[in-house]
Amino acid sequence: MRAVVITRSGGPEVLAIREVDAPRPGSGEVLVRIRGSALNRADVLQRQGRYPAPPGAPADIPGLEFAGEIEEVGLASARWKIGQRVFGLAGGGAHAELIVAHERVLAEVPESLSWSDAGATPEAFITAHDALISQALLQRGERLLIHAVGSGVGLAALQLARAIGAIPFGTSRTSEKLDRARQQGLEQGITLGDDLAELGPAVAEWTRGKGMDVVLDLVGGSLAGASVATLAMHGRLMLVGTVAGGRTDLDLGRMLRKRLTIRGTMLRARALEEKARAIDGFAADVVPLLARGTVRPIIDSVFPLERTAEAHVRLESNATFGKVALTVSD
Amino acid sequence: MRAVVITRSGGPEVLAIREVDAPRPGSGEVLVRIRGSALNRADVLQRQGRYPAPPGAPADIPGLEFAGEIEEVGLASARWKIGQRVFGLAGGGAHAELIVAHERVLAEVPESLSWSDAGATPEAFITAHDALISQALLQRGERLLIHAVGSGVGLAALQLARAIGAIPFGTSRTSEKLDRARQQGLEQGITLGDDLAELGPAVAEWTRGKGMDVVLDLVGGSLAGASVATLAMHGRLMLVGTVAGGRTDLDLGRMLRKRLTIRGTMLRARALEEKARAIDGFAADVVPLLARGTVRPIIDSVFPLERTAEAHVRLESNATFGKVALTVSD
Repeated sequence: MRAVVITRSGGPEVLAIREVDAPRPGSGEVLVRIRGSALNRADVLQRQGRYPAPPGAPADIPGLEFAGEIEEVGLASARWKIGQRVFGLAGGGAHAELIVAHERVLAEVPESLSWSDAGATPEAFITAHDALISQALLQRGERLLIHAVGSGVGLAALQLARAIGAIPFGTSRTSEKLDRARQQGLEQGITLGDDLAELGPAVAEWTRGKGMDVVLDLVGGSLAGASVATLAMHGRLMLVGTVAGGRTDLDLGRMLRKRLTIRGTMLRARALEEKARAIDGFAADVVPLLARGTVRPIIDSVFPLERTAEAHVRLESNATFGKVALTVSD
Repeated sequence: MRAVVITRSGGPEVLAIREVDAPRPGSGEVLVRIRGSALNRADVLQRQGRYPAPPGAPADIPGLEFAGEIEEVGLASARWKIGQRVFGLAGGGAHAELIVAHERVLAEVPESLSWSDAGATPEAFITAHDALISQALLQRGERLLIHAVGSGVGLAALQLARAIGAIPFGTSRTSEKLDRARQQGLEQGITLGDDLAELGPAVAEWTRGKGMDVVLDLVGGSLAGASVATLAMHGRLMLVGTVAGGRTDLDLGRMLRKRLTIRGTMLRARALEEKARAIDGFAADVVPLLARGTVRPIIDSVFPLERTAEAHVRLESNATFGKVALTVSD
C-alpha cells in the first residue's frame, strides 16, 4: 500500500509517498481502506522529531484519524461487516491507504457525510465531546470559553456547546477567524495576541461579572494561568494543548476560594478500554447530531494524500480555519 | 452568653471573653449549647484581620466547629430534640457558649466521643472526607500523599485512607511528627523544609516509580507545583490550604500527558445545600467509624474557653500534632 512516510526529522520536504507493507488485522481487529483523513498538530510535531509515536503505532507514518470502508475482518471480530463505512482514531499510521484498527474504537459514518468530511471528524469531535461533555460535565445554560476557537477542536466544541444549550465564547489571533466563528454560533469573541490583559475585562463584560463555567484551552502557556482568573465558582479549565508553552503561573488562592478544577487530557496515549469509552460516547451523543447536520466538521482545505506535504505547509501557516483534510483515492 | 471576641486585629492578646447577646434560632434552625470546639488556622487569620468572616457569620467571634446539646428548636425544625448531642460546622461564632445552626448541617455525636473530642472532629474529618472521598474519589489500594500530615486534617485524612484500604504517605516539617504519624498508620514519610528536591525521589522510591494517585495539599506555595510532579497517571491534587503561599509554577505538559486533575476546595463559604451534602456524607461514612473507634480525632492539647488566647499561641507555635481543642463549661 502507499503511505506518507517521515524519511527523517525536518520540514514538510521530509515527507514522501512510499510503498510499504500493508498491515494485517489480528484478533478483534479490522482492516480499513482509508478514504479520508486529516492533519493534526501532533503530525507536524512527529515530523519535526518532537513527538514520537506511542508504542504500537507506526514510528514513521503519521495520521491520527481516518474514515473508510471495512476491507477485511480479523479473527474474533464480529462487530463490522466488509464494506461498512466507519471512522475512528489511530495512534498513528492513518495517512495511508490501509490501516488496522481494533473493532471497538470505530463508529459508523452517517450517510450524509462525505469522505473528506468524515475523515476530518473524529479527532476534533471526540476530543471536544470527551473534554466538555464527559469530563467537564458542561451543562445547558453554562458559559464556555474556547481558546483558539478557529481550530478544528475549537469549532467542534463551539457547535457541541450550542447543541446542548450552552453559550460559547472564544478567542482567536485574528478578527477574521472570530467573524467566521460567529457564523458558526459564537456568542462573543476577542482577538488575543501575546498581551492577555484584555481577556479578564472582556469575560467580565460578557458574563456580567459571573465568569466562565468551563474554559477549553488548546493553547496553554501563560493563557492557561490567565484563564483561571476568568472562571466562575466551580469553574473547570480543560487543558488539551500546550502549543504556546508548557508552563504557567497558577493562583492557588483563587483555586480554593472559587473551588476550581484544572484537568489535563489527551486522546492519543489512552489504553484501548478508555479509547473505546470515548468512541462510545461520541457514537451515542455526536454521530446523531452529525447525521442530522446539527453539527459538522468545518473544513479549511482538502488535499489528496499525494500532496500531504502541502497540507503540512497549510497547517503550519496558522491561517487555517477548521480542519486540513486529506482524501485517499485508489 | 460568654463568647471569645476579637476586640481589634492583632496577636492573641486582642482576644477577650465578653458577655454578648445570645443568638436566637430562626425557622429551620436550632440553638446549641456548646460543650466542645477547636481552633483552625482561619481563626488565627481572622484575628489578624486577614480573613473576614463570611456573610451571615458573626464578624468578631471566631470558631468554625462545635459539639454540644440542642438547647432550643426554632419553628419548622423537626429534625432534633432538646438535649440531643450534635456536632457541626459554623461560618464563625463557635468559640462561645451558644450558637445557632441550621438543623441540616448537624450530625449526631456517637456516645463514645467526649465533648473535647467531639468538638475537634467536624472540620478535620468533614474536610478530609469531602476532599478525598467525595471529590478525589480515593479508592482502596490507591496511594495518597498528605502534606502537613501532623495537622488535624492531615491526621483525619491518614485514618480515613487506612479505613478504606488506601495507602497513606506524608510530609511534615519535623521527624518527630512523622514518628507520631507512623503510630497512626502512616506508611512512609519524609521531612520537608524549604528545599523540595527530596520529594520526587522519595515518592519514586515508595511507589516504585508509579507515583501518587492523590495528593492532599494543606500547604500550597511551591509545594503544590512540586506535588504535580509526584502524581501517577490520572492523579488528583486536592488543594485545601495555602499557608505556604498562594502561587505556584505549573507544568502543563505533565498535566496533559498524565491527564492530571487539580482541584481547590474549602468548606467555610459554601451554601447551605452544599454544606448539608458534606455533613450527610460525613454522617453516613465517618460517624460510624468514629463510633467504632476505627478513626478518632487526634488531640494536641485542650484549653477551656477562658484560655482561648493560649490556645491561639499554641496553634501558632507550629509545634502542634493534631487539634487544639476547646472545652466550654457552664
